[in-house]
Amino acid sequence: MASIVSLQQDADSVTLEWDDGESTPLPAIWLRDHCQGVESRDPGNGQRLLNITQIPPDIRIAAAVLRDGRLLVDFEPDGHHSEFEAGWLLEHCRHFERQHDDRSEHTKQLWHGNSFADGLPRCHYDSFRDGAGHQREALRAVRDYGFVLLDAVPCVPGEVLRGIENFGFVRETNYGPLFEVRARIDANNLAYTNLGLGCHLDNPYRDPVPGLQLLHCLASSTDGGESVLQDGFMAASILRQENAEHFETLSQQWINFRFRDADTDLRARAPLIEVNDRAEIIKVRFNNRSIDVIHLPHADLADFYQAYRHWAEILERESLQVEFKLEAGQLMLFDNTRVLHARRAFSATGTRHLQGAYSDLDGLYSRLNQLEQSA
Amino acid sequence: MASIVSLQQDADSVTLEWDDGESTPLPAIWLRDHCQGVESRDPGNGQRLLNITQIPPDIRIAAAVLRDGRLLVDFEPDGHHSEFEAGWLLEHCRHFERQHDDRSEHTKQLWHGNSFADGLPRCHYDSFRDGAGHQREALRAVRDYGFVLLDAVPCVPGEVLRGIENFGFVRETNYGPLFEVRARIDANNLAYTNLGLGCHLDNPYRDPVPGLQLLHCLASSTDGGESVLQDGFMAASILRQENAEHFETLSQQWINFRFRDADTDLRARAPLIEVNDRAEIIKVRFNNRSIDVIHLPHADLADFYQAYRHWAEILERESLQVEFKLEAGQLMLFDNTRVLHARRAFSATGTRHLQGAYSDLDGLYSRLNQLEQSA
Repeated sequence: MASIVSLQQDADSVTLEWDDGESTPLPAIWLRDHCQGVESRDPGNGQRLLNITQIPPDIRIAAAVLRDGRLLVDFEPDGHHSEFEAGWLLEHCRHFERQHDDRSEHTKQLWHGNSFADGLPRCHYDSFRDGAGHQREALRAVRDYGFVLLDAVPCVPGEVLRGIENFGFVRETNYGPLFEVRARIDANNLAYTNLGLGCHLDNPYRDPVPGLQLLHCLASSTDGGESVLQDGFMAASILRQENAEHFETLSQQWINFRFRDADTDLRARAPLIEVNDRAEIIKVRFNNRSIDVIHLPHADLADFYQAYRHWAEILERESLQVEFKLEAGQLMLFDNTRVLHARRAFSATGTRHLQGAYSDLDGLYSRLNQLEQSA
Repeated sequence: MASIVSLQQDADSVTLEWDDGESTPLPAIWLRDHCQGVESRDPGNGQRLLNITQIPPDIRIAAAVLRDGRLLVDFEPDGHHSEFEAGWLLEHCRHFERQHDDRSEHTKQLWHGNSFADGLPRCHYDSFRDGAGHQREALRAVRDYGFVLLDAVPCVPGEVLRGIENFGFVRETNYGPLFEVRARIDANNLAYTNLGLGCHLDNPYRDPVPGLQLLHCLASSTDGGESVLQDGFMAASILRQENAEHFETLSQQWINFRFRDADTDLRARAPLIEVNDRAEIIKVRFNNRSIDVIHLPHADLADFYQAYRHWAEILERESLQVEFKLEAGQLMLFDNTRVLHARRAFSATGTRHLQGAYSDLDGLYSRLNQLEQSA
């Protein structure tokens, strides 16, 4: 484990020097802003008590020393004194430029159709519910692969909502707290017919899009109706590799989505591929059914359509898809900002009944962060 | 109202010519993709049945004519025939490059502290609940100004949740379906003390951030505790005007937010000012209490701090703030991606009790879109 061996200091900054020869320059303003003292940060809840405007614009270092593994800093002109523990410095300054983003492709395991030769990520529901080690494994699978299958879920209507209580909260929508997926006459949405559905993500016409979807199978005696999953981050990374300009176009040119029925008129404007400030993939969208009229500058339209067609072609590659039949008593939990799902057409005879619900990723990650720390 | 007087056509596109001399070129791929026929679009729910990959890459125009106010197009090589109604063309092609984005600053009325000399946007709760004209006015106020005050709300615990049922759905969080705001011993969040709180937006450590916040006052007999609201879009537009580079820095350099207590560890990475693909402001964030350790490339740190300080200084300008006392029986409903709120400190004697809850903007806009169409 790295340790600080010395420091250099001038009025503008303190530079930590590590035992492997690396160094971390820390500007005076950053040090003052990150003071861990009780007058700068609430000792109970850890919230910052200090507003940036309370720090003098000409803040500078008067003195800095290492003592008993701690960094002690005196500031001018306000005479403030700060102390930083070695452990805190190691955690936050050792890899100073490394950003944490739990939505980024860099924190994921990207996969294709052959990645799960040893079986899909799965977890017994009893083990998922008791909050012990297996729940952590299941939530890690959602973080890393974007999905997990839960087995032996009671075939009781509404169980999908109780499943969410283990890690987060139900995101109710115009479809209700949960939605019924079975063939219906006069369906307001193609999902509620027995037609096949191509790979898609749900609800791109919503802002915010629900980050998690759950589909719980209560009955499955039709022919067909197999489920397909696909890693949208892998697909987007392939697009970038095959044509960086197409990737750029889809992240920079946003389009409109819309869903309308008798009681609803939802609209959103968003990119098909969303990137963070380091151009890392963080969210994808694809749902040809609910793309609204496309309005782009005339000069950009041809490029957009080429990129969009390329993206759609990649999403149809079977080599990227995992197919399986969701049986009664199984529930799939997946990241609706990353993992596309599809359904094969199914027969009109027999029964196919799923209950679905939405939730959000932040609740799941919060629960996982807790489990990781108590591990 | 504009009308189409003629068209020009070649293999690649059809150009509509309007009676004022304007023209709209429509590429073959766009026309085919927007076919309104029953085989391309579900007549019941309006969803697109066609996938972009089903359209030949070399799609072109074979023939195009205007007849009885409709545009008739024959395509090659697939021989497809499409018809577009004049009303549809007028709505979608007249201003082809104009994007609809209900989150953009361009669809808002920006305001400062003196903008409401004739009174704040408000609505009687009975009128808000009955779904008639006044509800539309109230929801328009949320869209245009980012907030509305509801009067004569029954001082009954939980009424804040029933208020949401008029336009959308409750976003439950780790604080519960609703949260109690009153001074508390060992508060896990500074909001639950009697300290003043500077202008902020709630929950930047959540992804997605709740788009709407409601605060319902059940009791207010303390000295102090006045509410302050401020238009974050106006503040961001002032920042852009005073220093375009600072604006650019805050939209391009994202930072981390975090909230942690015994049961929760929520993290998000996001910009302080979020823009769409046309560089229009669509969301702002500010909450010094929950900014996590700032990790940026060393070379960008000084610029970031200057921009961040500038942003914080603007948000402290009293000329941008509206101050009022929320009385028992009043509820404020505001856009938590735009309108900052603050609270003055209040006395330890007397009672101050608010109940708050979160919801999402898309549900509210859906309801408003419905009301606008039935108007």
